[in-house]
Amino acid sequence: MRVLDRGEQLRKELDAARAAGRRVGLVPTMGALHEGHASLIRRSAAECDLTAVTVFVNPLQFGPSEDFATYPRDLEADVEVAGTAGAGVLFAPSAEEMYPQRPTVTVTVAGEDVMEGAARPGHFDGVATVVAKLFNLAGPCRAYFGEKDWQQLRVVRRLAADLSFPVEVVACPTVREDDGLALSSRNVRLSEEERRAATVLYRALSAGVAARLAGERDPQTVRRIMADTVAGEPLAALDYAEVLPDRLLVAARVGRVRLIDNTRVRV
Amino acid sequence: MRVLDRGEQLRKELDAARAAGRRVGLVPTMGALHEGHASLIRRSAAECDLTAVTVFVNPLQFGPSEDFATYPRDLEADVEVAGTAGAGVLFAPSAEEMYPQRPTVTVTVAGEDVMEGAARPGHFDGVATVVAKLFNLAGPCRAYFGEKDWQQLRVVRRLAADLSFPVEVVACPTVREDDGLALSSRNVRLSEEERRAATVLYRALSAGVAARLAGERDPQTVRRIMADTVAGEPLAALDYAEVLPDRLLVAARVGRVRLIDNTRVRV
Repeated sequence: MRVLDRGEQLRKELDAARAAGRRVGLVPTMGALHEGHASLIRRSAAECDLTAVTVFVNPLQFGPSEDFATYPRDLEADVEVAGTAGAGVLFAPSAEEMYPQRPTVTVTVAGEDVMEGAARPGHFDGVATVVAKLFNLAGPCRAYFGEKDWQQLRVVRRLAADLSFPVEVVACPTVREDDGLALSSRNVRLSEEERRAATVLYRALSAGVAARLAGERDPQTVRRIMADTVAGEPLAALDYAEVLPDRLLVAARVGRVRLIDNTRVRV
Repeated sequence: MRVLDRGEQLRKELDAARAAGRRVGLVPTMGALHEGHASLIRRSAAECDLTAVTVFVNPLQFGPSEDFATYPRDLEADVEVAGTAGAGVLFAPSAEEMYPQRPTVTVTVAGEDVMEGAARPGHFDGVATVVAKLFNLAGPCRAYFGEKDWQQLRVVRRLAADLSFPVEVVACPTVREDDGLALSSRNVRLSEEERRAATVLYRALSAGVAARLAGERDPQTVRRIMADTVAGEPLAALDYAEVLPDRLLVAARVGRVRLIDNTRVRV
């Protein structure tokens, strides 16, 4: 696996691959790779001829009071995970490489000022801007995103559709620990006690699913069941619980770590 | 020359060309092609293996009180001009083809709220959004823009840089009538009398250049000379006259038609 930190290197490498008829798959990440990322990389490696993994903690998608500084970073381990999972290229640029000047032309996302968009103003603008840049630098046929960040996935799909990117956005299932906790790079920041409490997100989703399966059709009731589950966990503070026609979503703070999760509801 | 109206056709056609090793040049236009456009197409045809001309009057870049409805349209003539100038593909999509749904993910331009950005709020967001889409649909190596729309050129360069588009933006000189009037699709909307008055933009620029060449270094004085020139033309109403370190720019209404022009100043 080639490890690159310059955009022009990445472009040159992938242009050469494309010129040789190879299909490029892209797995954009913020690093601190875990088994969830590895599953995306394996899927891309199975479906494409060359998989490029990007590792970039994008300052544009963090608010001033968020965890940009403390977001986990471990490039050496990332190289190991990406290579083992089948990546051919790992691109890990600096912030200066990605933003040599403060960008004045950016991508803006409307109509997503709920859930993460409400909790993190400007977050999806930052996500859409960096994903557009990565699409343009890598020129992938397919790009792989995890369902754990479900609203982000929805935004990336709209990005590709509304700006006509020639990229197929592929959604991959959330990978979970045995106790249901969705894998997240932020989980390493949980204390042992918080780690046990963090299962409350999955428990809330499961309670919501159970209610729907038991016939409960009122979204507000399902929402309250999820919220009550989180309220029952002293170390957790609910940010939001949402019920969409075919999906339940929850966000909560466990200690100083903000976690999100979601699940499809089949009723 | 192939005439296409579906984005997927355009992509397929140009993908095949690229796969055969041909370099694609793009000339985005709003149609009503004149000799200025033809000069862009000829330049692209000389430098690239296949030139795609796009003809699309982009509703996103027109304000509610602007001339979207009356903007000149003549596809049959455009096909003739583009083919003669050396285009291999002409892409003329409908608004429904370009925007099958109201886009929620768009490109936003900051720091250009002067000149055209001040006179036409949202204009450059619309320009940047449609140019991003056309870049993504056509995947050109190079894209050709006229210097007549100088601020637009500046925006497109920033679009390419800030969002890492793999496109070289090529600026081409303004083409003028014998009396100095910059070629514009909107010129056909001028009455005979207005057409004569419309040279006032070029006369204002020339007066500014003359003042600079005569040693005048105060931008406000040069600006006033340009504004006074426009004020001397009864059929014209100044929108703005601007003096940048190496460029003079002017916008004015002649009758109901809004015209812009600019020139480099070499002092």
